[in-house]
Amino acid sequence: MTNPIQHQAVNFAAPRGFAAALKADCKETFFPDDPFHKSKHEKPLSKLKKTIQYFIPLFEWLPNYNLRLFRYDLLAGITITALAIPQGISYAKLANIPPIYGLYSSFIPPFVYAIFGSSKHLAVGTVAACSLLLSETIGAKASPKDNPTLYLHLIFTSTFFTGVFQTALGFLRLGILVDFLSHSTITGFMGGTAIIICLQQLKGIFGVKHFTTHTDVVSVLQAVFRHRDEWRWQSAVVGIIFLVFLQFTRYVRQKRPTLFWVSAIGPMVVVVVGCLFAFFAHAEKHGIDIVGDLKKGLNPPSIQYLNFDRQYLPVTVRAGIVTGLIAMTEGIAIGRSFAIMKNEQTDGNKEMIAFGFMNIIGSFTSCYLTTGPFSKTAVNFKAGCRTAMSNVIMGLCMMLTLLFLAPLFSYTPLVALSAIIMSAMLGLINYKEMIHLLKVDKFDFVICMAAFLGVSFISMDIGLMLSVGLALLRALLYVARPAACKLGKIPNSSLYRDTQQYHGSTPIPGILVLQLGSPIYFANSTYIRERVMRYIQEEQGDSDSKTDVIEHLLLDLSGVSSIDMTGIETFVELRRILGSKGIKLIIVNPRLEVMEKLTLAKFTDAIGKESFYLSIEDAVQSCRFSLLSNKTTMEESSNGAQTIV
Amino acid sequence: MTNPIQHQAVNFAAPRGFAAALKADCKETFFPDDPFHKSKHEKPLSKLKKTIQYFIPLFEWLPNYNLRLFRYDLLAGITITALAIPQGISYAKLANIPPIYGLYSSFIPPFVYAIFGSSKHLAVGTVAACSLLLSETIGAKASPKDNPTLYLHLIFTSTFFTGVFQTALGFLRLGILVDFLSHSTITGFMGGTAIIICLQQLKGIFGVKHFTTHTDVVSVLQAVFRHRDEWRWQSAVVGIIFLVFLQFTRYVRQKRPTLFWVSAIGPMVVVVVGCLFAFFAHAEKHGIDIVGDLKKGLNPPSIQYLNFDRQYLPVTVRAGIVTGLIAMTEGIAIGRSFAIMKNEQTDGNKEMIAFGFMNIIGSFTSCYLTTGPFSKTAVNFKAGCRTAMSNVIMGLCMMLTLLFLAPLFSYTPLVALSAIIMSAMLGLINYKEMIHLLKVDKFDFVICMAAFLGVSFISMDIGLMLSVGLALLRALLYVARPAACKLGKIPNSSLYRDTQQYHGSTPIPGILVLQLGSPIYFANSTYIRERVMRYIQEEQGDSDSKTDVIEHLLLDLSGVSSIDMTGIETFVELRRILGSKGIKLIIVNPRLEVMEKLTLAKFTDAIGKESFYLSIEDAVQSCRFSLLSNKTTMEESSNGAQTIV
Repeated sequence: MTNPIQHQAVNFAAPRGFAAALKADCKETFFPDDPFHKSKHEKPLSKLKKTIQYFIPLFEWLPNYNLRLFRYDLLAGITITALAIPQGISYAKLANIPPIYGLYSSFIPPFVYAIFGSSKHLAVGTVAACSLLLSETIGAKASPKDNPTLYLHLIFTSTFFTGVFQTALGFLRLGILVDFLSHSTITGFMGGTAIIICLQQLKGIFGVKHFTTHTDVVSVLQAVFRHRDEWRWQSAVVGIIFLVFLQFTRYVRQKRPTLFWVSAIGPMVVVVVGCLFAFFAHAEKHGIDIVGDLKKGLNPPSIQYLNFDRQYLPVTVRAGIVTGLIAMTEGIAIGRSFAIMKNEQTDGNKEMIAFGFMNIIGSFTSCYLTTGPFSKTAVNFKAGCRTAMSNVIMGLCMMLTLLFLAPLFSYTPLVALSAIIMSAMLGLINYKEMIHLLKVDKFDFVICMAAFLGVSFISMDIGLMLSVGLALLRALLYVARPAACKLGKIPNSSLYRDTQQYHGSTPIPGILVLQLGSPIYFANSTYIRERVMRYIQEEQGDSDSKTDVIEHLLLDLSGVSSIDMTGIETFVELRRILGSKGIKLIIVNPRLEVMEKLTLAKFTDAIGKESFYLSIEDAVQSCRFSLLSNKTTMEESSNGAQTIV
Repeated sequence: MTNPIQHQAVNFAAPRGFAAALKADCKETFFPDDPFHKSKHEKPLSKLKKTIQYFIPLFEWLPNYNLRLFRYDLLAGITITALAIPQGISYAKLANIPPIYGLYSSFIPPFVYAIFGSSKHLAVGTVAACSLLLSETIGAKASPKDNPTLYLHLIFTSTFFTGVFQTALGFLRLGILVDFLSHSTITGFMGGTAIIICLQQLKGIFGVKHFTTHTDVVSVLQAVFRHRDEWRWQSAVVGIIFLVFLQFTRYVRQKRPTLFWVSAIGPMVVVVVGCLFAFFAHAEKHGIDIVGDLKKGLNPPSIQYLNFDRQYLPVTVRAGIVTGLIAMTEGIAIGRSFAIMKNEQTDGNKEMIAFGFMNIIGSFTSCYLTTGPFSKTAVNFKAGCRTAMSNVIMGLCMMLTLLFLAPLFSYTPLVALSAIIMSAMLGLINYKEMIHLLKVDKFDFVICMAAFLGVSFISMDIGLMLSVGLALLRALLYVARPAACKLGKIPNSSLYRDTQQYHGSTPIPGILVLQLGSPIYFANSTYIRERVMRYIQEEQGDSDSKTDVIEHLLLDLSGVSSIDMTGIETFVELRRILGSKGIKLIIVNPRLEVMEKLTLAKFTDAIGKESFYLSIEDAVQSCRFSLLSNKTTMEESSNGAQTIV
C-alpha cells in the first residue's frame, strides 16, 4: 500500500547507547535535582570549591554572613530555645529517659546541623512521635523502670543506628525512600500518634503512678481508669489550667499570625509558672509530682555505653531504622515546605546526611534521636531566622542553660509537661485533611485511616507498615491496570479525545482509536492485550452494519513512557491476532524510550515503518485513504473478518 | 484577561459518583475479561444457563460434541498418554516418591480438568520444576529416605494446600497475581531449574547411589564427583545412547514440524526398549538399576493421610503455595498461548479454579501436584486435539495402564528415566531469549539472571523470590520516576513533540510546554515538582535574552491516567511557586479520572476554568495572545521575574 498523503515522519533514529540510556535513567532516579548543573563549565579549582560548598553548606553561607543577618538569627535562636527547654524535658519523659537528656539533645545536634544542613529554616530538636516509638520498641526488650541504665544505653545505641542508616541513605542518594511515605500515611500516622500521646498524658494530668508500657488506646485508657484511686484532683486542676492557657495562646496565634511568639513562649511560661508554683506551694506534698534532679553540666560522653550485644541488636537496629525513617521524613518534608515558601531548594539527600551525622555524634554525647520537628521549625521561620545560625544560637543558649540554669527546672511539675505535650499534640490531629481525603480520594482515605487506626489501636509500627503496604499495593495495582480508553474525533478539529469524557467526540467508521495508559509492563501486558481485544469485540459485536467492521486499530502511545520485553511481546502477539482478523495495527506517536525498545526488539522492522504515525489525524487520514482504495474488496474482507469473530 | 480566540472546551462536568467510579475500577481490576457482557440483555433462564456454562465449561462444549471431534481427540489423547507414562514415572522420581504415584497423577486430575477447565488444548500432568521444588522443600523437613511414608503424606498435604490456594485465588479473581510473574522471571527460573535438573540426572546416568538433597549446582556436582567410585560405565553408555536418540527425535521435529509425533513417542520408545533390554539382559546385574515394584491397581484413597500436624504445617503450606503459584503460572501461560493461536480466550481465574479442584481431589486420591505442563500441552495441540476430551481419553488410557500394564514398566531402567528428563530439560534453557533480553532490555535481563543464577547457585525459591522482588522494585521505581519531557512545536503542523526525540521541533518563546508521565502519585510528586522547577531554571538560566523569560507553563496531562491527593497538592504548590515568579500555570487535556479528582479537590476552581485547554495548540495560541496584549508591560514583568530567579 503506497500512501500519497504527506505526513510528519516518526523519528526512527538509532536508539541511544546503553551507557547513555543508563546514565540518563540513573541521573533521573538518584540526582533529580542535578546538583552540579551550574558548575559544568567552570575551572577545576572553582569546581572543587563548589563541590565542597555542596557537601558542607556551611561554607556556602558563612562567607557572606553579616551582622544584619545575625540580628534576625539571634532573635529566632532565643525564641526557639524558649520552646526547646520545655519540649526537651517533656519528650524525654515521653521516651522514658531522665529529662536532662532532652536538654542535652538540644545542645550538640544543632551545631552539627548548622555545618551540614542545607535548610535555612529548620530548627533541630526531639520529636514526640519518635520518642514514644522508641520507648515502645526498646521498652519491650528492656524495662525503663527495672533497668533504667540498660534502657538508656539501648536508646543511645538505637540513635547511633538511626544516624548510620540516615547517613547511608544519604550517601546512596536514596532520598527516594522518603517519597514512599505518602502524605496520607503521614497525616494518619501523626493523627494516631497524637491521639495516643494525648491519652497517655492523662497519666500526668491525673497524677497516676502505675501505668502500662503499651501504647494502644485500649490499654492506655484501661491503665488510666484502673488506677482511679491514684487520681489527684490538685494535679488535674493545675493541668487543666495550664492546658487552657496553652490552647488560648494557640488561639491567639491563629487569630493574629503576627502574635506567633505568644504561643512560642507559652510552654516556657507554663514551665516557669509551674516551677515557681511548685517551689513556693511545695506542690510535691499536694500530690503534684515534679521532675526533680537536673544536674548542672554539659553532655557527658556516651560513646562507651553503646551496646552492641547480640541479644539487643535486633531491637535497637529495628527501632533505629523505623524511627530514623519517620524522623527523616518529617525533617525533610518540613525543610522542603519552608524552602518552597521562600523559593529555595533543599536537597533531601544532603539533609539525610546532616541528620545522620547529627544522630551519630548525638549518640556519642548523651543525646537521643533528633530531627527537624514541625513546631520548632515553624516558630524558627516565623521568628525570622535567616540561616542555620539560629540553631547555633539555640545551642549556645542551651549550653548556658545546662551550665547554670538546669537545676531551676527540676521544680517543673510533671503535670505542666503533660499539658505542654497534650497541647502540642492536639494541633497534629488534622481532621480537616482527613475529611478532605474522604471527599477527594477514597483510597487515600483508606491509607490514612490504616495508619490512624492502626497506630491508635494496634501499635505504632504496625499501623505505619499497614499504611505503607497499602500505598505500595495501590502503586502496584495501578501499574497492573493502566487506564485505556477509546478516542473519538471532536467535530471541527483534528483532536481525538476519550469518548466517555467528551460525548461530542465521534468514532471514525472502520477505525478504532485506543489510547493506552502507561507503563506497558509485564504486570499489565496480558491485561492490555485482553482489554484491546475486548474493545474490538465490543465494536464489532454491538453493530451488525458492515461499515462498522474494524479494519484499522490505532494505538496512541503518546502517554506511554515506558515498555518492557513482555510489553513488546504483547504488541507482537496483538499484531498476529489482529492480522488473522484482517485488522491492521498502527502505532501513533511512540515516545523516545518506547521507540528505542521497539527498534531494538526489531518490532519496528516487523510491523513496517509505514505503520508508525506521528499524530492520530495523520494516521486516520492515511487509513481512510486505504479504506477508500480498497472499497471494491471491502465487502469480502469485512465478511471474512466477521465470520472469524 | 479575556481571550477572544475560540477553542474547544475542556469537559468540566461533575465527577462520577463514588459508587460508579468504584464499580468501574473494580471491574477493570478483577473482571478485565468482562465475562457476562454477552448475556446482559437475555432472559433470566438463559442467563442462568450461561452462568452455569461459564462456571462449568464442560456444559458449554459437551452438548455440541460429535464423532468428528472425537476422532481428533482420541488420537491426541493416545499420543499424550505415550508421553504421560514415561514423564509420570520420571517426575515422580524427581519428587523422590515411588514412581507409581506419577502414574496415579495422570489418571484422576485429567477428568477433573475436563469438567472445569476452560482451555481446549491443555493437557494435564506433573511438571519437573515443581516436582523438584517439592522434594527440596519437603525434603528439608522429612527425609524421603529415612521416613518415606511421612514424606509421601507431606507431599499429599502440600498438594492439598496448593489446591486450596489455587481455588481461593480463582474465586477471589486474583488472576492478577499471575501477572506479576514476568516473562523474564519465568525464562530465568525455567533455565535455572533445567540446569540443576539436568545435573541431577548425572546421578542416574552414572548410576551413583549416594546423593545430596541440595539442589544447587555446586552441591550437585560435588555429590556426583565425590562418588566416582560408584560410577558404572554400563549405565553411562546406555544413558548416552538414549539421550542421543531423544535429542535426535527433537531434531527431527524441529526440521519437520509434521513429524512432531516422533518426538512425542520418543520417551515411550526409550521406556519400552529400556524395559525389554533390562528384562532380557538382566541389566540390574550389570549395574543398571531398574524402577522395580509397580503394583497393578487404581489410585488408593489418600485423604486419610493428609497431615495437618503443627510441626509440618509451615513447610507444607509454604511448599503448597510456592509450587502452586509456579504451576499455575505455567499452566495459565501455556493455555493462553495456545488459545491465542486459535483466536480463543481462556479465563485465568477459571483456570485457577480448575487447577485448584484438580489438586484438591488429586490430594485425596494419591496424586501429587499437577498442572498443564508445556511439553504435553504442545504435543496435545499438535496432535490435533479439539476439546478437553483428549484429557479424558488420556485418563482412560492411564486407567487401563494402571489396571493391566503397570507391572511391565517396573523393568524401566533408571538411566532411561534420567535420559528422558535430561532431554526434556535441555529444551527449556532458552538461551536465545536471554540474549534477546540482554540486547533489548538490560533490566529485564538482570531480572532473568537473578532467577537463573539464584536457582542454579542458591535455591529454587530464593532465586524465584529474588527475581520477583527485582521486578516489583522496577515497577515501583517506574512509578517513582515517571518520564517527563519538554515539547516543542513541529514546523508546519499543530503538533508538539519531545524536543529530545524530534530535533526539528522548536520551543515557543515565553512558553514552556512539558509533558508529564503517568501516574502522578505520592511516590513521585516531589520529584515532579522539582523536575518542573529544574526545567524552568534551565530555560531561564541558559539564555540571557529577555524574550526567553518564561511567562506560561503548559502542563500536558494527556498521558496522565491517574493522580492522587499528594499529586494534586503538588499542583497547588507548583501554582503558588510559579505565581510568585510571575509564571502562569496552564493545564492541557486532563483525562477523565484526573479531571474528576481535580474538580473534587477544588483545584479547578482555584486555578480557574480559563486555565484549562483541550489541546496544546489552543493553549499556545491563547498564551500568545496574552503575551501580545501585555507587550507594553512585558519589559517590566520580565525584569521582575528575572530578579526573583
